This record gives sequence, structure tokens and C-alpha cells, in this order.
Amino acid sequence: MTNQRPLAAIVLAAGKGTRMKSDLPKVMHAIGGRSMVRHVLEAAVSLGAERTVVVVGPGMEMLTHHVAPVPTTIQTEQRGTADAVRAAMPALAGFTGDVLVLYGDVPLVRAESLAKLRAARTDGVGIVVFGMRAPTPNAYGRLVQAADGTLDRIVEFLDANDEERALPLCNSGILLADGARLGDWLARVKNDNAKSEFYLTDIVGLARQDGLKVAVVEGSNDEVAGVNSRAELAVAEETFQRFMRESAMADGVTLTDPGSVWFSANTKLGRDVIVHPHVVFGPDVTVGDKVEIKSFSHLEGCTVERGAIIGPFARLRPGAQVGEDAHVGNFVELKNTVLGKGAKANHLTYLGDATVGAGSNIGAGTITCNYDGFGKYKTEIGAGAFIGSNSSLVAPVKIGNGAYVGSSSVITRDVPDDALAIGRGRQSNKEGWAASFRERMAHLVKKKG
Amino acid sequence: MTNQRPLAAIVLAAGKGTRMKSDLPKVMHAIGGRSMVRHVLEAAVSLGAERTVVVVGPGMEMLTHHVAPVPTTIQTEQRGTADAVRAAMPALAGFTGDVLVLYGDVPLVRAESLAKLRAARTDGVGIVVFGMRAPTPNAYGRLVQAADGTLDRIVEFLDANDEERALPLCNSGILLADGARLGDWLARVKNDNAKSEFYLTDIVGLARQDGLKVAVVEGSNDEVAGVNSRAELAVAEETFQRFMRESAMADGVTLTDPGSVWFSANTKLGRDVIVHPHVVFGPDVTVGDKVEIKSFSHLEGCTVERGAIIGPFARLRPGAQVGEDAHVGNFVELKNTVLGKGAKANHLTYLGDATVGAGSNIGAGTITCNYDGFGKYKTEIGAGAFIGSNSSLVAPVKIGNGAYVGSSSVITRDVPDDALAIGRGRQSNKEGWAASFRERMAHLVKKKG
Amino acid sequence: MTNQRPLAAIVLAAGKGTRMKSDLPKVMHAIGGRSMVRHVLEAAVSLGAERTVVVVGPGMEMLTHHVAPVPTTIQTEQRGTADAVRAAMPALAGFTGDVLVLYGDVPLVRAESLAKLRAARTDGVGIVVFGMRAPTPNAYGRLVQAADGTLDRIVEFLDANDEERALPLCNSGILLADGARLGDWLARVKNDNAKSEFYLTDIVGLARQDGLKVAVVEGSNDEVAGVNSRAELAVAEETFQRFMRESAMADGVTLTDPGSVWFSANTKLGRDVIVHPHVVFGPDVTVGDKVEIKSFSHLEGCTVERGAIIGPFARLRPGAQVGEDAHVGNFVELKNTVLGKGAKANHLTYLGDATVGAGSNIGAGTITCNYDGFGKYKTEIGAGAFIGSNSSLVAPVKIGNGAYVGSSSVITRDVPDDALAIGRGRQSNKEGWAASFRERMAHLVKKKG
Repeated sequence: MTNQRPLAAIVLAAGKGTRMKSDLPKVMHAIGGRSMVRHVLEAAVSLGAERTVVVVGPGMEMLTHHVAPVPTTIQTEQRGTADAVRAAMPALAGFTGDVLVLYGDVPLVRAESLAKLRAARTDGVGIVVFGMRAPTPNAYGRLVQAADGTLDRIVEFLDANDEERALPLCNSGILLADGARLGDWLARVKNDNAKSEFYLTDIVGLARQDGLKVAVVEGSNDEVAGVNSRAELAVAEETFQRFMRESAMADGVTLTDPGSVWFSANTKLGRDVIVHPHVVFGPDVTVGDKVEIKSFSHLEGCTVERGAIIGPFARLRPGAQVGEDAHVGNFVELKNTVLGKGAKANHLTYLGDATVGAGSNIGAGTITCNYDGFGKYKTEIGAGAFIGSNSSLVAPVKIGNGAYVGSSSVITRDVPDDALAIGRGRQSNKEGWAASFRERMAHLVKKKG
Repeated sequence: MTNQRPLAAIVLAAGKGTRMKSDLPKVMHAIGGRSMVRHVLEAAVSLGAERTVVVVGPGMEMLTHHVAPVPTTIQTEQRGTADAVRAAMPALAGFTGDVLVLYGDVPLVRAESLAKLRAARTDGVGIVVFGMRAPTPNAYGRLVQAADGTLDRIVEFLDANDEERALPLCNSGILLADGARLGDWLARVKNDNAKSEFYLTDIVGLARQDGLKVAVVEGSNDEVAGVNSRAELAVAEETFQRFMRESAMADGVTLTDPGSVWFSANTKLGRDVIVHPHVVFGPDVTVGDKVEIKSFSHLEGCTVERGAIIGPFARLRPGAQVGEDAHVGNFVELKNTVLGKGAKANHLTYLGDATVGAGSNIGAGTITCNYDGFGKYKTEIGAGAFIGSNSSLVAPVKIGNGAYVGSSSVITRDVPDDALAIGRGRQSNKEGWAASFRERMAHLVKKKG
Repeated sequence: MTNQRPLAAIVLAAGKGTRMKSDLPKVMHAIGGRSMVRHVLEAAVSLGAERTVVVVGPGMEMLTHHVAPVPTTIQTEQRGTADAVRAAMPALAGFTGDVLVLYGDVPLVRAESLAKLRAARTDGVGIVVFGMRAPTPNAYGRLVQAADGTLDRIVEFLDANDEERALPLCNSGILLADGARLGDWLARVKNDNAKSEFYLTDIVGLARQDGLKVAVVEGSNDEVAGVNSRAELAVAEETFQRFMRESAMADGVTLTDPGSVWFSANTKLGRDVIVHPHVVFGPDVTVGDKVEIKSFSHLEGCTVERGAIIGPFARLRPGAQVGEDAHVGNFVELKNTVLGKGAKANHLTYLGDATVGAGSNIGAGTITCNYDGFGKYKTEIGAGAFIGSNSSLVAPVKIGNGAYVGSSSVITRDVPDDALAIGRGRQSNKEGWAASFRERMAHLVKKKG
């Protein structure tokens, strides 16, 4: 039976993150192209949280703006985790469902794992604590379990005796509590400890005093790893990437060299896609079945349809739509451009704010001149057109269906369907000029020497 | 004394490979740019196999076509490995030499290792089994050896007792059998087991019944790893790449960051070649001594001669031949093009279907216009020529020895030796135009706002 | 109290390095873009060495030239490490301070570690030996310590008994000796051993005979790893890169995928710099705060100022200076070029020997034609200028402040401030031409077929 209570989430994000050595609030640093705090908010949303509040520190307006429209409250002083949660309670006034406490710097926690916390809050269970097994002896608080597997207490590492320190299950900090009682427990937490801080872990004892059970759910280390430095950020990123890579391969994507492919959080790849070594997926990329993405390609904000071939050295920027069986080759950039079915732009080309009809061929070195310093203008190329190499298409301009642009032309006016457009200088040869030029230059060089 | 018997190879490749989630038959997935089944066929050829047959599943015409001219036979139902080998026997009718059984999804087995199987089939030895030590406890069948080291029997993991499971030597599936007896043994294999399958391993017992010995040869884990999913494909690829990288370094190649360099199965690099980080070698690349290949270079189907410098960001496509001490620089693509000794094409250039003479300089942004939508045409550039930047060479066209093309020219007619060719628009300046344009645009913007 | 004695360093570099399979002397192979021997010389300089001498083998003129002005002496025969050090002594005639013995093929030793050797040479200590703990049982000589922690003797692995082999502390070869006595000890070293070599380790016993103590300082394995093959070179490079990456992250740089970023020994990155996956830093790069370097960028010999955005697919070559908030985009190369504050060169551009004023916009496909086959010429672009796409700027040439160059123009003469310059062919359209061309070609193809 599923837990049907309403859910709220409190995300603690007030920490300064001094060790990051950054002007950016710690939780705004990104993993998979998405800020850590957004990862956590996504998990809360996936889990069905109806209300969410982010606890920020003083002066973190940038963060407040970043998480909007999710509301924030300010923890004015850093007086411990219970104090931080307390700061969030007014935002949840009147809420009596489950309250989930998450951390903005613990970004990889998965909704599926959190669902287990929900499932474990059965009748008589006041709190569910998320534990994990740390790989090496460490300084985490230990979860001391009763014979029935419920949680007896959490003992901080510094206060633990040897037997307790040997316990394998550690406290991740994440927990789910009865929202009807949470406020009362928080009010009763004291700070009579070494650091004079209010610890959220103390509510476990208070719940048990009140005759409620505290359950434990175990997660993996990877997902509860906290980030306090750029090195830890890199470790979390690596964990996230490994997850994305494994997931892509399991779904039928070939990653020739998985470790060299970088995913964003929302990258979507179809079946029988082949991704060669050294490919970067920025945000918002969707790739259809049987697409081949060659090495040194960089994609963001784009869609690539079935059977297309991308790269090597291709850059697809936001708004690029590559049609079925189309080809985008080396040193080619597409921005806000639709490349029709079977169309080809294979070499040294910039297509910006353009549409290219099906089957058209864009020659090497083609440039859409889409910007005049003030506005951006559109280039429309019909189906079956042929744009000769090294041409400049000065937007706004239309090239008709089946039209042909001579190599090295500058096109400033529309080209009708099936017409040839040509616009370039005429060649003249000057016999012997190069020989005498070389003589002249050699002479000059000699004089200088 | 070498085993002088003729050799035949049977390659089992009928498995559907469901876990690959692919429309492609599993064994056609590639490692080092070569399909798995081709790796196995190469090993058989290296070992001197005179006859080879590939056992495919029903509906795998694509695979039959892929391995041609190697013949295939169809295993109509998946009834076990002995059944699969049986399906291949008609193709080997009358053959009485050694028969080697290989697997299309065990791609990394090396000819040198298989040669040991051959050597071990001495008089009185009817079968040689290829074993390996699995790194972790696993579900492989175990090789139970007699006191003299010969194989007593192979016990499937599920049927094995604890003592047998503790045996370190596992069955890889690969074996070499007396071809004169193999057919008889296969006919005697029964399927009275849990899965009702005919197991090839049963021939070991039959050989021993017939008074023959069965020998064991031990290989490395790496080379007998099977591929059943894209993740395992990636692991096999990594193993293969590691082998290629180690081999290159041992031969006197510097790989600054070995893990970021990707090799094809037939990549050949000379001595004192330096390969910088992030380089991809597609198929059929040969690189001479003392060549430097800078980062982000992509080579396939090309030769690079002694002392040349490639990249960064260079792409050499099939038919590219880069001469001694020549330079190919950034954002430069060569296709079916010969670049002469000491010639340079250093920036943003496309050379297709071209020949460039020794010592010529190809300016930045040069484009050969080699395609008119129907045919491809040649550009011939002589020795000591100078092609000014941003020029277009409209093929077919010849630029003579020592000729000079002015910057930004479009060349449509041949240029004689030592001549200057120029073909471009004339510049005119309109004083004050930009200032008034800006004023006009600012006015427009204000009106819109 | 710091050791105030003068310091000299002897760098042994006479080894042939046969296993490198290289025409280059072993110690000239590079790590982080700097030769191994230079790394060692840098460490000596950092430590304050007043005099340094490199011991080379016969025929290594290339190395002598490479380390100049540091003097070299030739060890004529390879007769052991004591013999090599002896060869260096004439170059230190009259020197009575500390003498540090380093190895050209042990490139990662850190000045901070060597400083500990200096500190340990207190009164009564004649020699300080640099030891390390090898990760696995190995063939290193073992350091046998007396009860007081001083060194009793060094025992070669081959001569060691089981107990000695079990000792964790190994001899790195590096040591610091009293320069006033070193010559005497070297003279007393004998070669009555299996290899008939003069071992430098023997001076430990001689110092103790003379009533002096020998101290031990322990370093990390990483820094004393020797390089004898390309594979070991790659391992040392990886160690070096790991150190650089960790150091950058600790200083407030985000490395999204640290393992894919390659540093040179003197790369300098500011705070809140973001480096995306797959970036290569060649020598002499300085990057200001808050710069973003996107994937597939290659930088060398350049400076990038605060807030600039580089890449993806950007190449900055020596002499590139990218101003504050400037942008260098995809397939753009800058060489010996100053890009002003806020200026943009975003697509398929080559800027060589150019200056670009603040806020100017360089259109896609712009090429500076800076070379005529003999000399390089300057292109000067003012502030607030607009260079239309696919233009060619034929140097020497000046484009004024606020000037505007029409798309696809070839500019051969100066453009005044605020003027428009245009120089390109005029377009003409030929109706129906493409349709009849296609018909003609189709006809031809049919005839050929």
C-alpha cells in the first residue's frame, strides 16, 4: 500500500561552501549542466512533493532568483540543521503530511530511493531516516538499530565508542518526518553540545520519547555523497555521468568510449544510436534512432532525426533541427536552423537562422550572413537546391527549390526556383607576375639581411 | 614440433543478442572499427585456417552478406552449442584435420593463444579446451583436471559442488577437436539436461570414453570475455584499446594521454610519432616516423609521411596522403588529396580530390569546389604555388608551378606556371555610411520599443 | 632552523634509454609539455641551487644544447652512479656546500620534498637519503634503519635477505651529501660487485665509517617514479596531470571532467574559471577569473582576461590576447592577435597578426590574409567595427573605429572610421538554368551508363 499522505520538501541550501572558493552559492554549481539544487528540486517533484521550500543563507539573492518560483526562506545564522529546518516551517504552516528534508549539496539522491522512505512511513513510524554504508572508515554519524531493525538512535562519530564506530550503517542526513509533529520536535531540540548547534538528528530521540518508531531505509553511497569542494563536485559529476552512460547503453546506444562522452541531465538518445569517442551533449538534446554521432561533436538544444549522421567536428546549437538521414559534417555550425530530410552540410559551414529544404546540398565554406550588427535575419533555402562552395547568403534572402548558386557567389537577392544565381569577381591571369614578385621579394630580403 | 594438420574454424554467431537492443545482429557490432565476427575471422586466418564457416541464425541475411565470401550455415533453432556446431559440419564434409570452435561474440581471442591449442593437440589428445581464470567468483563452468593436468571433465556451474566451484580454471567455450571424430561425438551428444540443450562440452566426456586425452590450455580473461550487452561491448572495446595503446608505446610511440587516443584495429604508427591527447584513428591509417599528431585530430583511410605535423583539429579522410614534413593545421579537411612534401594547409581549408605540389602554401579559408551536384572534379596545384587566403578553386582546374592566386579569388580557369591569378570584387568605401546606418537602426529599435 | 649552506645540484642524465625506442635522449621526452630534465632543473632552481651540472652520455649534443646555459659534463662510459657523479665533480671544484644528486628520468620530484632533505642535514649528518614506500613488492634497494631512525645501510634487493626485503622503505636514489666530503667518498667507492659498477649508495657506508650519521627523508612514490619506457612516461604524465588538476580545483576552478583536461606545467587559471570536458592547455597560458572554456578548445601561449568565453572548438595560438568579456567561438583561430574587450569572433574565422578594438564584431568566415609567401602583415581593426561575414582582410590594412565591412567583401585598402566598405561581385540570376543543367547532366549520366 502506497503512502497517500501529501508531501512537502525542505531543501537546505544555506551553507556558504567556503571550500568551493567561488562567488557562486555552492548549490548553484552544476552537475550534468544542471545546478545541484535543481537536481534536488527535480527529485522532490518526481516524488510528488506538493510544496517545496529552499532554505538559503543571508545575501544569497542569486540563489533565491535561481530557484524561483520555488519559495525560499533565510536562515539568518548557521546554527545547525534543526535550526535550518525550523526556518522553513513557517512556509509550511498548516501542512500535516510528510515532510522530506533534503540537502542542496547532496545532488544525486534519486526519486526511486526517496520513494522507499515514503513507503517505510507506515502507521506508528514517525520518522524514516535514509542511511548508507560508507566504503571506508569515516566520520559519519552511525545508525544504532534496535533488534527489530528500527532506529534506536543516531550517534555522532565524535561521540561514538569503538563498537558504535564499527557499525556499518551511517546517517546521510536525509529524512522523512511526520509533518504534524515536526514543528513540535524542532522546538524541543536543544543545543547543549560541543558546537552549540541544533542538530536535526535529535528529533529521532524525541520521536521515540513520544512512543513512535523510527525506520531506516538504506541507499547507495553514490547518491548521498555531499559536495563541499570542486574535487567533490567532480566526483559527483563522474558518478552522474556513469549513471547516464550505463543507462544509455542499457537502452541500446553504443558508446564506443563511454568515459569520453559527456551527458546533460536531459539528454535523450534513440535505439541503435552510435556515439563515437569524445562527444559532448549540452542541455536539451534529443536524438532519434540509428543516428551516428562521430567524434568531437558538440550538441545542445537540438533535435536530430532518425538515420542522420553528425560530425566529426560538428556543432549543433540551440534551435538546430537535423532531419532524417541528413548529414552535418566537419567544422559545421548550425544555429536555429532546420536542415531538411537528406540535406547535407558537410564542410566548414555556418548556417544560422536558416531553413534548408529536403535533399539540398550546402557546399563547403557556405556562410549565412544573418546578422547586421542589429537584427538577425532568415535564410530560406528550398528543396533540392545546390549552394556552391564558399558562397555567402546575405539574409534576409530566399533560394528557391532546385535553385543553383555558383561557387563563391555572394547572394543578396532572392533566387527563383530552378534558377542559377552567380555573383563573383572575374578571374584574370597575369603571366610571369609570380616569378617577378618572388625575385623582387628575394631582393628585398637580401637588402634587409 | 608444430601441429601440421590442416585447420578449419567454425564460428558460432547465431545468438540473437537480445540484450544489445539492436536491429543489427550482435556479432556485427564493432570493436576498434571492425565487427566482432571479423575479429574472430581474422584470428582464424592468422592461425592458418583453410576453411571457415559461420553459423548464423534464421533471418540473419545481413550477417551472411557481411562475412561473405566466408560461407554461412543456418542453425534453425537455438538448441545448444553442440547443435550449432552440428549445423556447420556439412560445410566441412570430408575434412579430417583440426576443427577450431570459436564464438562471434568472443572477439578478442588472439591467434597467438589459439596457436597454443594447436600445439597441445599432440598424439593421443582428441580435444584441447581453452580455459581461463575468472577474476571473481562467477557462473562459468569449471574445468576439472586429472592429476596429470589433462582435463577430466567440464562441470557446469549450476551442477557443480562447492569444491568444484572453488576450482580456479573455467571453461571459455573455445576448443580444438579432432575433425575426423568430431562429427561422431556431436551425433552422440544428448540433451537430457535441465535446459534440454545439446552442450558442446559433452564431447569432452565422449572423447575420454573413446580413450583419448583432453588437454587444457590457459588464456587470459581479457581475450575470452563474451559480449552480450552494449556495456560489455564497451568493456571489450576498452580492453582492445588498452592492448593497442600498450603495443604502440612499446614500439616507440609517445601517447601523451593514452586513454584519450582511440585506435582502429589496423592503425600503424611509426617510431617517435607523438600523439597528443584526444586523437581518433579510424580504419586504414598509416603514419610514418617522427610525425606529430596534435590534439583533436581525426584520421581515417590516409597515409602521413615522416616528419609531417597534423592538427590540432585536422581531419584526414580516405585518400588523404600527407607528404614528408607537410603541415595540416586547424579546421582543415583533406579528402582524396595528395599534399606534397613540405606543403602547408594550415587553416580552415577544404581540399577534396586535389593534388598539391611540394612546398606549396594553401592560404587560410581555401576551398576546392570539387562537386557540382553530379560529379567530382580534380584540382591540380603545382609545386611552389601560393594560394591566397579565402580563395575558391572551381574544379576541374589546374594551378601551375610557382603560380600565385590573389586572396579571395575565385579561380575557374587554369593558371599558368609562375602567373598571378586574381578574381575578386573591387573595394569601394562610402564615408559616414556606418554612422548613419547605426543612427537609423537605433531609431528603428526605439520605435519598436 | 633552516639549512643555510650553499646548494649545488648534479643531474644524472647519461642513460641511453634504449627501451624508449627513440632518437631523442630519454630525459628530453616531455611531461606537461616540458622535458623531464627541465622539470628536474626547475626543482633544483626552486630549491635555491646556485650551481647545477648535468651529466650526459657521449654523443648527446642535442641534450647539452637543450639544457644550456646549464653546463654539462660527459660520462664517457656507463660505470655506475658513483662514476656519473664523479664525472660532475670537476664542474663543482671548490664547492663545499650541500650537493644534491637528482636524476633526469625522475622528473616529478618536488622542491618541497627536497627541502626536507636540506632540513634533515643537521650537524653530524653527512648524507640525507630520499626514501619511499613502494606500493608492491619490488626490486628496489631497501633502507635499513638503526634504532634511532638514522640509516644503517642500503642493501641492494638482489643482496637482501628475506627480512631485509620485507622492509617497507626503499631507496629512491636521490640524496643530499656534504659537498666538502663527497669527492673523497666517491674516490673510495669500489666496483667489486657482480656488475663491476661503482654504486653511489656505497657512500652511505663510507660516511658512517667516517663517524657521520646518515638521515632518511621519506617521499611519496609518485614523485620518485623513474621513466624507462613510453608506458612509464605515460604513467608519469598521468601523475603530473592529476597533481595539476587537483591543484586547479583546490584553487577554485571547476573541471567538469578533470581527466579530459590536459595541462602544461605552467598553466595558470583564475578563480571561478569553468573548464568543460576535453580541453588542452599548451605551454604559457594564463586565464583570468570567471572565464568559461568550452569543450574542444586548444590554448597555447595566450592570455584570456576575466569573463571571456572561449570555444567550443576554439584555438588560441601564441600571442593571442583575449580581452575581458570577449568571445571566441567555434572553429576560430587566433594567432598573435589582440581581441579587445567585449569583442566577438564566433564562427569559422582566422585572425592572424591582428588587433581588434573593443566591442567589434567579426563575422562568420572572416579571414585575415596576413601572409604573402614572404612576410606577415598586420590587420588593425578599430573599436565598435563590424566585419561582415565571409570577408577577407588583406593585410597590411586598417579598418577604422565604427567602420562597417559588407559581407563577403575583400578589403585591400584602409577603411576610414564610420565608413562602409564593400567589395564583392554583383549577383545575376539566370532563370531556368538549374533545371536545364540537371536535365543535361541526367542525360550525360544516362549516356555513360
